[in-house]
Amino acid sequence: MYVKNCWYVAAWNYEVTGKALFKCSIINQPIVIYVKDDGQYVAMEDRCCHRALPLSMGRLEGNDLRCMYHGLKFAPTGQCVEMPGQDRIPPGACVRTFPVVEAHSWVWVWMGDPDKADRELIPECIALETPGLQHRSGHIEYDADYQLINDNLLDFSHLGYVHSASFGTSEDWAYTRPKIVRLERGVRVQRWVTNQASRIAGPENKVDIWGTYDYMLPGVMIMNMRVTPAGSAQLNNMEPPDLTKTATLFSQFSCQAVTPISDTRSRYSFSVLTSDEDAERGLLDAFWANTRQAFDEDRAVIEAQAKSMAMDPARKLIPSVYDSALGQFRWMIEKQAREESSASADGVPG
Amino acid sequence: MYVKNCWYVAAWNYEVTGKALFKCSIINQPIVIYVKDDGQYVAMEDRCCHRALPLSMGRLEGNDLRCMYHGLKFAPTGQCVEMPGQDRIPPGACVRTFPVVEAHSWVWVWMGDPDKADRELIPECIALETPGLQHRSGHIEYDADYQLINDNLLDFSHLGYVHSASFGTSEDWAYTRPKIVRLERGVRVQRWVTNQASRIAGPENKVDIWGTYDYMLPGVMIMNMRVTPAGSAQLNNMEPPDLTKTATLFSQFSCQAVTPISDTRSRYSFSVLTSDEDAERGLLDAFWANTRQAFDEDRAVIEAQAKSMAMDPARKLIPSVYDSALGQFRWMIEKQAREESSASADGVPG
Amino acid sequence: MYVKNCWYVAAWNYEVTGKALFKCSIINQPIVIYVKDDGQYVAMEDRCCHRALPLSMGRLEGNDLRCMYHGLKFAPTGQCVEMPGQDRIPPGACVRTFPVVEAHSWVWVWMGDPDKADRELIPECIALETPGLQHRSGHIEYDADYQLINDNLLDFSHLGYVHSASFGTSEDWAYTRPKIVRLERGVRVQRWVTNQASRIAGPENKVDIWGTYDYMLPGVMIMNMRVTPAGSAQLNNMEPPDLTKTATLFSQFSCQAVTPISDTRSRYSFSVLTSDEDAERGLLDAFWANTRQAFDEDRAVIEAQAKSMAMDPARKLIPSVYDSALGQFRWMIEKQAREESSASADGVPG
Repeated sequence: MYVKNCWYVAAWNYEVTGKALFKCSIINQPIVIYVKDDGQYVAMEDRCCHRALPLSMGRLEGNDLRCMYHGLKFAPTGQCVEMPGQDRIPPGACVRTFPVVEAHSWVWVWMGDPDKADRELIPECIALETPGLQHRSGHIEYDADYQLINDNLLDFSHLGYVHSASFGTSEDWAYTRPKIVRLERGVRVQRWVTNQASRIAGPENKVDIWGTYDYMLPGVMIMNMRVTPAGSAQLNNMEPPDLTKTATLFSQFSCQAVTPISDTRSRYSFSVLTSDEDAERGLLDAFWANTRQAFDEDRAVIEAQAKSMAMDPARKLIPSVYDSALGQFRWMIEKQAREESSASADGVPG
Repeated sequence: MYVKNCWYVAAWNYEVTGKALFKCSIINQPIVIYVKDDGQYVAMEDRCCHRALPLSMGRLEGNDLRCMYHGLKFAPTGQCVEMPGQDRIPPGACVRTFPVVEAHSWVWVWMGDPDKADRELIPECIALETPGLQHRSGHIEYDADYQLINDNLLDFSHLGYVHSASFGTSEDWAYTRPKIVRLERGVRVQRWVTNQASRIAGPENKVDIWGTYDYMLPGVMIMNMRVTPAGSAQLNNMEPPDLTKTATLFSQFSCQAVTPISDTRSRYSFSVLTSDEDAERGLLDAFWANTRQAFDEDRAVIEAQAKSMAMDPARKLIPSVYDSALGQFRWMIEKQAREESSASADGVPG
Repeated sequence: MYVKNCWYVAAWNYEVTGKALFKCSIINQPIVIYVKDDGQYVAMEDRCCHRALPLSMGRLEGNDLRCMYHGLKFAPTGQCVEMPGQDRIPPGACVRTFPVVEAHSWVWVWMGDPDKADRELIPECIALETPGLQHRSGHIEYDADYQLINDNLLDFSHLGYVHSASFGTSEDWAYTRPKIVRLERGVRVQRWVTNQASRIAGPENKVDIWGTYDYMLPGVMIMNMRVTPAGSAQLNNMEPPDLTKTATLFSQFSCQAVTPISDTRSRYSFSVLTSDEDAERGLLDAFWANTRQAFDEDRAVIEAQAKSMAMDPARKLIPSVYDSALGQFRWMIEKQAREESSASADGVPG
């Protein structure tokens, strides 16, 4: 189940550069993306209208894309503008294009009604080049439906079980219920985890960890994790920390985006950012290494889960109290997808 | 087509030991097996009731098994006894368990109605540690339905064609019809093959080979092959040999079990056993080497057969006189499976 | 969609020799081919009628083929002539055979009604051993429906896009419309491409290329390409060259055959032939190297196209003026396949 009227992360901006053709797939739709001379992006259906060859096997000629089977040339609008050896271009000789923009270091593609493509609907992510921050970024792919990855990211009670090796997180994460706030196109998840051992504070000190993230349609996470001295949570009455009176031992930001490639495969794009000072202390590199390890841990779990569920897809799952955020988010996706589907049905003349 | 009210061989007992979690699948059902502190086995559905992660990726805590996604803990009964961060465990938070016992060096799992699980229904196999015998054992997997392996083992007329390289068996095996006796839950297959060349008797002597095996539901073979001097068959009027008057040049026992993993994959577990004296003469090692080679020969044939049949599953096969034992055994499986299925239908309130 | 009453190329004659069993598949039908003592070929269904083992895993005994599972022996007619251990051979114990002949260095199999197998319907190809010519030959397989390969070979407008690296062909090929003549069981495609750069003529000279090929059911191409001095096309009024007044710089022949293995896999057999003189000048080796590279280029394109089309098989394609030859050929296949299908329906007693 997919929302269409929303922006999907197709790639990091550095993956789509120069005169290269970037091949990807979003909600089962093969897409080729490239950059015009003016720096604007073009996202086109990756299939020639003549004999179906992927246009990503084609050749960029100025701002146009030529299919390298029989030479049909397409303008950035998707209109075929040349059929070699043929004067008249038949009506219908065009390929679908998709609204596409660059924002916050990501390339975003709108998969629904182009008239509804509103740049304001792109979540407020943290760009890699944000002044004062240093970053690492990457992406991996999963053999799993994207909603299972959303689920995982919306329930951190797994941190003590799945990530004790990488992040050193304790099972206390499963005993600390987050506060969940409904946003217009997502949910906000916040919590203190108190009195934790931490590599940053050293063996003799404990820390309180403040975590907050927004999780936005269709699967974009903007997170801040803040390690503070033990007692900070109480000092702030378990509310979001007042930074004027709360010391920070380490703070990291992360942006993560889950993109459905197909019903059974997903792309996961992610960054980690810290202050220049923390980066100089080696904390960015350390955290990045832990993060990569953690994402491998997640992938092993989620791919095994996907395989297990595929054996009996209709079977009921037993809910837990931690399913609240992911339940709300799944409901949002279902609601919007259903609305889009009935709106589109209305559009069909009776 | 599977019988459920029967014991399936899941593994050799030495495969399921210590604190390891043994992952397997029987008739399409993923199962995790482990040993409790008291030495008893536990066989559990390999799928957490919460988010479907295989429990074989979990952690054994005493006699309980903890799912390593969100930390649900299950008792050996399958009941969930802990949901971290949650006081109340919802009804239905449990996983299915299966009767499981160790017998004759194998771990057996009962896939049907637990109330009907009767240890007496385990076939009388020969344990690896039987006094006076030495053994070799192993297992391989096939890309084929288990019934094709049963078929193969129930018709030794293939020995001269498939196994002439490994066992040195002659085509006489295809010209010697066995005596087949119906047992309560299987068939007994017996025959003399006379006047054979044999590596054991040397180039100038011939031998008579006596072979007898019981083939029991759902696919368990208990076999004895006895190499005797030429003339022994006649001396015994082609009946089972009277050992007081029949010399034995070499005798080997073998237990073999075919277990359906899924509709298209099977596990084949097997042992070879000889007397201490024969083992000291090197005959156990020699026979074991031949056996491994023979099972590779069988696998090549049966996997090719499975692939060929899958191209046209409904196509009629031409029967031969040697299909008698396998026909009876297939009929037994079909009959019991049909009875189980209609009994289970009766159990559904009208 | 397949024509059945036609000859399919199964193999090069040198692939089916001696006492080897050649395993192949044509229009989803597994076939085993071998040579009898008298040099005649036998093509048999590659599936024993008893337990479905591929007969290509069997053993040739004189002119008969023995299945190496339970020893059934089949005569070249397909009749089972021996069931070991069994006196009576049941009716129906036989396998299907197919008319098969060797011609023009290829082994051809007739997949339809044997009574209609007419050797005269084999297209007039150029044998490898043709006096005065030297040759190279080979074959590759495609993950694609055979009709996509036919399409490719029936529309050379792709030469300037797909093969500029291998053949050095220019985009002029896409601007030169061929003359297409309907033949009884195929089409003839002819064209001049004028004023081309050519490795053969050297950097300072241009050439006119004359190309003609017949493309015959179900997918057999017989081609001659002739490189002539610039002006030759005009000299011949754009008609087929009069060789008494037209110089030839280089001439090559090629025979190519596309055989459907299954709905998604195809075999492509091909030769290149030149005169002894051209071969001695190194042109055969050079052209062969280019050809192999070009066929890899084709395969990459066609397999990508097949994958792309499989995602939405019903989607309409936009035609071009170059689809004429391939459209006619697809129509021929469809027409004959439909006629065969209705003839076969008529044959079923009401």
